[in-house]
Amino acid sequence: MRAAILLIAHGSRVDAANADLRKLAAMISERIPEAIVEYAYLELAEPSIPDGLEACVERGAEEVRMLPWFLSAGSHVTHDLEANRRRFIEKHPAIECSLCPPLGLHPLMIELVLARLEETF
Amino acid sequence: MRAAILLIAHGSRVDAANADLRKLAAMISERIPEAIVEYAYLELAEPSIPDGLEACVERGAEEVRMLPWFLSAGSHVTHDLEANRRRFIEKHPAIECSLCPPLGLHPLMIELVLARLEETF
Repeated sequence: MRAAILLIAHGSRVDAANADLRKLAAMISERIPEAIVEYAYLELAEPSIPDGLEACVERGAEEVRMLPWFLSAGSHVTHDLEANRRRFIEKHPAIECSLCPPLGLHPLMIELVLARLEETF
Repeated sequence: MRAAILLIAHGSRVDAANADLRKLAAMISERIPEAIVEYAYLELAEPSIPDGLEACVERGAEEVRMLPWFLSAGSHVTHDLEANRRRFIEKHPAIECSLCPPLGLHPLMIELVLARLEETF
């Protein structure tokens, strides 16, 4: 089954912030070369989540994993992303579409915070 | 020099999301027991950043590291957090106060995303 990953960020008015998601997509694509990797923004930047999901379909995805590049399960993840997922499966009932957890307090997150504490912005 | 860490999140209307920052503060405090660890929210939750900074002062901090628990250097980090830092050092010129980088595309972030891709929310 051809699998796609849709990386989703909130979106920012600052393009350097939006660029992080594009770089992340390139890095994930390098690590999982067999997957279709696309990205989308909830707001303030393009492509939108519906457009990102359709891009996966156009590239032949039979399964899509939506990865929220969000820190916590706030209303954007639990409400907005889940609503996008439901609308997508209504439109494409033959395509599996699941929502991955936000980054949250994974053990690697603690190590990442400890690493950033050693640096100055 | 007594050092404090102020962990700062955006803040959410969903308290489970805000709770993540409180848990993160407890975890960081456990890992760096000699540091004063406080937390604050930019908006939508309490304590505010100025209140969090003052809490560090009240606990005897001579140095404060502001850690943005944010993914990217969007306007919240580059403008809002930096403005809070400047106002703080004007009020407390004897206390060192620095801003750490947001989490960004640290190598651990890539591993964290790969780990979450294996899970369903």
